[in-house]
Amino acid sequence: MKITILTIFPEMCEHVLSSSILGRARQAGLIEARAVDIRPYSSQKHKNTDDYPFGGGQGMLMTAQPIADAMKDVCGPDFHGLRIFMGPKGETLNQKLVAELSREQELVILCGHYEGVDQRALDHYIDREVSIGDYILTGGELAALVLTDTVARLIPGVLGSSSSAVDESFSAAGLLEYPQYTRPRVFEGEEVPPVLLSGDHRAIAEWRRQQAILETARLRPDLLKTAELTGKEKQFLLDRGFEDAEELGRTERNDEAE
Amino acid sequence: MKITILTIFPEMCEHVLSSSILGRARQAGLIEARAVDIRPYSSQKHKNTDDYPFGGGQGMLMTAQPIADAMKDVCGPDFHGLRIFMGPKGETLNQKLVAELSREQELVILCGHYEGVDQRALDHYIDREVSIGDYILTGGELAALVLTDTVARLIPGVLGSSSSAVDESFSAAGLLEYPQYTRPRVFEGEEVPPVLLSGDHRAIAEWRRQQAILETARLRPDLLKTAELTGKEKQFLLDRGFEDAEELGRTERNDEAE
Repeated sequence: MKITILTIFPEMCEHVLSSSILGRARQAGLIEARAVDIRPYSSQKHKNTDDYPFGGGQGMLMTAQPIADAMKDVCGPDFHGLRIFMGPKGETLNQKLVAELSREQELVILCGHYEGVDQRALDHYIDREVSIGDYILTGGELAALVLTDTVARLIPGVLGSSSSAVDESFSAAGLLEYPQYTRPRVFEGEEVPPVLLSGDHRAIAEWRRQQAILETARLRPDLLKTAELTGKEKQFLLDRGFEDAEELGRTERNDEAE
Repeated sequence: MKITILTIFPEMCEHVLSSSILGRARQAGLIEARAVDIRPYSSQKHKNTDDYPFGGGQGMLMTAQPIADAMKDVCGPDFHGLRIFMGPKGETLNQKLVAELSREQELVILCGHYEGVDQRALDHYIDREVSIGDYILTGGELAALVLTDTVARLIPGVLGSSSSAVDESFSAAGLLEYPQYTRPRVFEGEEVPPVLLSGDHRAIAEWRRQQAILETARLRPDLLKTAELTGKEKQFLLDRGFEDAEELGRTERNDEAE
């Protein structure tokens, strides 16, 4: 997997790409990731990459030419990847889209800045626009780095085999994670839930699933609409005062499968 | 406004906080932002900040003690801010929540890592959990930086007065932005829409609003449910084949107000 971020702030991106789990994955050769500076591609004398909007209005727009030339250079004739623009009009990123993008050979991610980008650069050089959420950032760099991070962690070997397992069992079932505890047994007077110290793996697994269901019902009831719940688990929610629980859980999970 | 990010990757955060618009805002004294390393607060000999989960399972958890001591140090007796944890169970960040958080005096943002954080650290030291979206990151750092960026840009002076105006008129009305164009007039054979060159400010404003409505209807019809549309604008959508437009626009905007 190869990821290229086109940006006018390459240093900031490079620094993040070199840090933490992303940095280790790059060093191990599991992922090729880099930031490419758009500015040197400008045909302007002073390497400007912005200009005033036609039709008036305040703020500056990124011009099409440097973006077009950077794209042509980065995506050679053999390019078989996806060119993504991080922008507010894009599809909202979620874990399903992350999984889809992680199956691409190559991603080239364009970061906008100033007040926006000349629409023609997007029309001619972008395959897909992606938004990381309904909030406004000062630029596309953090969004591009978020996308890179989420995609990279699905690439085999980037995380320990450990981590992925935990995520899959819960995020795949559409539930939030259960609460977790580590040493010491008592922290500021609060004890770890006794079941976790019982050594009874079946009881621990059941407690964790119940907690995950309760947390989801309490904090993100919207997720329960698509979560897989057994009849017993729906009753468990009803017993605890979650009145809509009966309508929840679109996929009827078989009690036998537990 | 003061923002402190508690992290085990302070350098990466510091680098982003020193870049671009955030960096300029810090230098200008408009915002106080810093990353604080959790590790030195560990009472362990080797300054460990993680341990195995009680009850088994793979991966490591962040322990409560270093987080608790970092929090106590950063939030002195006069602390009147909000302590936020960036995590998947949190309220999903949107521009309304950003605006709310930007009115706080101080934010202290905890970044999780490894497989999670001992629940007791969250129960005892966190006021609010925030998620930047329904996708899984390798750590909370990018999420904390996204939150910092979105909040910072609402602080007076951080953006030119210019930029904010454009955003507000559209994001406040619940619409996506209209397409924008800058020089040259013709790029790769594609001309700028003639109305933008007309000099007719009224016509330009009308075209932009129509484009914003069309873009929203095409790409994010969910946003139209809460957007403010006039009767004329709903008809405009109906005429273009958006059949649900009549039901859309919860707030009936007065045609006269146009």
